[in-house]
Amino acid sequence: MLKPLGDRIVIEPQEKEEKTASGIVLPDSAKEKPQEGHVVAVGAGKVSDKGERIALDVKEGEKVIYSKYAGTEVKYDGKTYLVVRQDDILAVVE
Amino acid sequence: MLKPLGDRIVIEPQEKEEKTASGIVLPDSAKEKPQEGHVVAVGAGKVSDKGERIALDVKEGEKVIYSKYAGTEVKYDGKTYLVVRQDDILAVVE
Amino acid sequence: MLKPLGDRIVIEPQEKEEKTASGIVLPDSAKEKPQEGHVVAVGAGKVSDKGERIALDVKEGEKVIYSKYAGTEVKYDGKTYLVVRQDDILAVVE
Amino acid sequence: MLKPLGDRIVIEPQEKEEKTASGIVLPDSAKEKPQEGHVVAVGAGKVSDKGERIALDVKEGEKVIYSKYAGTEVKYDGKTYLVVRQDDILAVVE
Amino acid sequence: MLKPLGDRIVIEPQEKEEKTASGIVLPDSAKEKPQEGHVVAVGAGKVSDKGERIALDVKEGEKVIYSKYAGTEVKYDGKTYLVVRQDDILAVVE
Amino acid sequence: MLKPLGDRIVIEPQEKEEKTASGIVLPDSAKEKPQEGHVVAVGAGKVSDKGERIALDVKEGEKVIYSKYAGTEVKYDGKTYLVVRQDDILAVVE
Amino acid sequence: MLKPLGDRIVIEPQEKEEKTASGIVLPDSAKEKPQEGHVVAVGAGKVSDKGERIALDVKEGEKVIYSKYAGTEVKYDGKTYLVVRQDDILAVVE
Repeated sequence: MLKPLGDRIVIEPQEKEEKTASGIVLPDSAKEKPQEGHVVAVGAGKVSDKGERIALDVKEGEKVIYSKYAGTEVKYDGKTYLVVRQDDILAVVE
Repeated sequence: MLKPLGDRIVIEPQEKEEKTASGIVLPDSAKEKPQEGHVVAVGAGKVSDKGERIALDVKEGEKVIYSKYAGTEVKYDGKTYLVVRQDDILAVVE
Repeated sequence: MLKPLGDRIVIEPQEKEEKTASGIVLPDSAKEKPQEGHVVAVGAGKVSDKGERIALDVKEGEKVIYSKYAGTEVKYDGKTYLVVRQDDILAVVE
Repeated sequence: MLKPLGDRIVIEPQEKEEKTASGIVLPDSAKEKPQEGHVVAVGAGKVSDKGERIALDVKEGEKVIYSKYAGTEVKYDGKTYLVVRQDDILAVVE
Repeated sequence: MLKPLGDRIVIEPQEKEEKTASGIVLPDSAKEKPQEGHVVAVGAGKVSDKGERIALDVKEGEKVIYSKYAGTEVKYDGKTYLVVRQDDILAVVE
Repeated sequence: MLKPLGDRIVIEPQEKEEKTASGIVLPDSAKEKPQEGHVVAVGAGKVSDKGERIALDVKEGEKVIYSKYAGTEVKYDGKTYLVVRQDDILAVVE
Repeated sequence: MLKPLGDRIVIEPQEKEEKTASGIVLPDSAKEKPQEGHVVAVGAGKVSDKGERIALDVKEGEKVIYSKYAGTEVKYDGKTYLVVRQDDILAVVE
C-alpha cells in the first residue's frame, strides 16, 4: 500500500478513452487541461507552525479533477498511480 | 456537481458575443482584459496556520469579473466552466 | 455597481490631457510614471491569518496617485475604470 | 499635499550639483550609488498580520540617503518628489 | 554513522536492476520518475518559529518513494546514500 | 553622523593593501571573497510582526567580515563607508 | 577568533587528498558533491519573529558533511575556513 506524506494524495487516473460517468470531457482549448481520477490514499496533512496537523479536504474514494501536469507517476502492483499535492486538485466531482 | 477545493471557485463564463446586461464591454487596449461570468460553486476556503477556515468573499449566483488568463477550463454535463482562485476575481458586479 | 474584492480598489483614471486641479504633471524621465485618479469603490480588505479583516487605507472619493502599469481596465456603463490593489497606490492627494 | 500610503515616504531629492552641507559626495565606483534628500511626508506604516500599525522609523524633515534607483517620481506644484518605500532608505544623516 | 540535520533524511537507494518486493516498477513516461529506497536515518525535524521541534513523518527502516532528482549523494563506509529533505519523499510503501 | 535604518549597518572598510592585524588575507580562489572592516554605526533593528524591535547582533567598534559584493558605498566627510544589512555580515573577528 | 553571526557556522574543510577516518569518499557522479570538515565555531542562532533565539543543531568539534558550493572562504591566521549557513550542512558524522 502507498501511504502519501503530508499534503500529498495518491490518485488512480481515469483512462482518457473511457467515457466518464459524470460526463466530463476534457476540453481541447489552449487552456491547461485538467484530468479526472479517484482518490486512493490521502496524507495526514501538513504540520502548521503551531505544531498542529491540518487535515486534508479530500477523502479516499472521492472522484476529483486535478491539474494535468501535476504530480509524479508511480507504478505499483501493476497499476499506474499519480502522487499529487492537495493544492493541485481543483474540485471534487459529486 | 463540481465542489471546488479551498479558495477555488467554479465560474460559468458569459459568452463574449452576448451583450451583457450590466453593460460591461471588454476593452481592447494593451492591458490585461478581464472577463465576466456567474459563480456556480465556491470552496470552503483555505485553512489558516491557526487551523481556522477562512470563508470566501464571493457567493453562489453572483456575477463577477475575473482575470481573463486565470484558471482551468472544465467541461461538465455539456457546459464549459472555469475553476479559478478567489484572488483571480477582481470585483463583484451588483 | 462594481464591488472590488479584498484589497482591490476601483479607480476612475483622470484624463491625461486634462490639466489637474492639484497641479500634478506627469514627469517625462526614464522613471516609472505614476497616474492620477479618483477612488470609486474599495474592497473590504484582506483577511489576515488570524481571521481578521484588515481595512484599507483609502476611501471612496479620494484622489490618488497610482503606479501607471498596475491593474486591470474594466469598462462599465460606458466608462473605463481601473481595478488595482491598494499596494499599487503611492499616495493620496489632499 | 501628498500623503503617502503604508510604508511609503515622499522625498524631496537634493540637487546633485548642489554641494551638500554634510559633505556627502556621491562616489563614482561601480557600486550602486545612493542619493540624498529630505523627507517631506511619511505614511502611517504597514498593518501587521496581528492588525497593528507598525510606525515608520523616519520623520518629516529628516535628511536621508536612499537607493538611487528606488521609487517613483511625482511632480506636484512644480516640484519633483520621489515616493519610496522605507526599506529603500539606507540611513538618516544627522 | 550519518546523523542528518533538521528535516533531512538519509536513504539507502534500491538498486534499479533489482526487482522490488512490492512490485514497484519505475515508469518510462515523460513525467518525473520517482525512486525507491530504505530510510537509514532521520533528522530531529525543523524548529518552528514558536521554538518547537516538528518531528518528521518517516521512520528509520521504512521503505519510501522519493523524487529521483532530489538530494545529495554521499558515500560512507563503501555504500552510497542519498540525503534528501522530507518534502522530497512522496510516499511510504507499506 | 550616519544613522542606519532597521537592520542596516555602516562599515568603514579596511584598505586591501594594509596588512590586517588579525592576519586575515583575502583568498584568491573562485569563491566569493569576503572583506574586512569596522562597524561604525548600527540600526535599531527590524520590527517583527508582533511589533517588537529585534536588536542587532553586532556592535559599534567591532571588526567584521562581510560579503564583498554587498551593500552600498556612501562618502561622508571625506571617508568612504559601506551600508550593508546585518545578514551580509559573516562573522565578527575577535 | 572568528565568531559567526546568526545561523552561520565556521568550518575547517578536510583536505580532499587526505583519506578520511570515517571512510567517506566523495562520489564522482553528476550529482552535487558534498564535502567534509570540522566545525570550528557556531553562531548564536537566528532570532525568531517571536524574539526568541533558536539555537543551532551542530556543535563545535563535530565532523559534518556540507554542500560543496555553499559558503564563503575566509583565510585567518594562515588557515582557510569556510563560513556556511546551518541549512547547508547535510549531516553530522558520528
